[in-house]
Amino acid sequence: MNILVLAVGRLRDKTIARLCENYLSRIDRPGSGISIEEIKEEPADREALQVLKKEADRLRCRLTQGAFIIALDREGELCDSPEFARRLNSVMNRGFNRLIFLIGGPLGLEKSLISGCDWVLSLSRMTFTHEMARLILLEQIYRAHTIMRGEPYHK
Amino acid sequence: MNILVLAVGRLRDKTIARLCENYLSRIDRPGSGISIEEIKEEPADREALQVLKKEADRLRCRLTQGAFIIALDREGELCDSPEFARRLNSVMNRGFNRLIFLIGGPLGLEKSLISGCDWVLSLSRMTFTHEMARLILLEQIYRAHTIMRGEPYHK
Repeated sequence: MNILVLAVGRLRDKTIARLCENYLSRIDRPGSGISIEEIKEEPADREALQVLKKEADRLRCRLTQGAFIIALDREGELCDSPEFARRLNSVMNRGFNRLIFLIGGPLGLEKSLISGCDWVLSLSRMTFTHEMARLILLEQIYRAHTIMRGEPYHK
Repeated sequence: MNILVLAVGRLRDKTIARLCENYLSRIDRPGSGISIEEIKEEPADREALQVLKKEADRLRCRLTQGAFIIALDREGELCDSPEFARRLNSVMNRGFNRLIFLIGGPLGLEKSLISGCDWVLSLSRMTFTHEMARLILLEQIYRAHTIMRGEPYHK
């Protein structure tokens, strides 16, 4: 499984960054590569729609042909962890060459970008910082891998 | 607001522990005390129902009169962050002297303990480790405080 996480903004919290690195190293094994690309965040003093549009344009430039695109949005589809694992597995079996997750910045993702995605996933109805969202997503991807491989979950 | 988090098991991950400490120190201000008590986790080699029962007995011993008890359970009620803040505020206005959150260990919480609680809250349909659940809960309590006080959220 080839996974790319496109995230708007840098991880400023070094402690969260360390936890993310840990999950990345556990997911990244032969046959299941994962990488993260950070997209420049627009300054927060601009008008919200303009910020979202500029960030969406930058994200669109990084999307590749043949990829299955998943937007993270609080109002998206909720699913439990085994269902998340099944969905990832099913996407790969349908011949997509890559799975791309989009994580917005503090304002989230532009509506038109979200509606063009293949799946809109909600980690929770609660609002998380985009840093926490990245950590939770990586933890769930790691968990999905252990579920698919039938391995025990290592904390 | 006086909040107690009763959690089964210790935080073994020092990085998550540091993030939790950070949220605790930000929540703990005059007029809004918060503390965490860790309850001994039963060895995992016992039968699951027995483990849950023993842990539930220990949790029950720590519950105090006049408190509003909230169980964290994946299958509980989902709510967004502003609604979570409203609910916490409303509980305190109804004369409860304390808010107690219960976080189970790796197996969760005993069903009969859950059904005796005043509210069963789900952070997400996804499964989190109990360490991540504690971190997410503290982040949401901090967020609820900023919402109630009308303050900006500081990352």
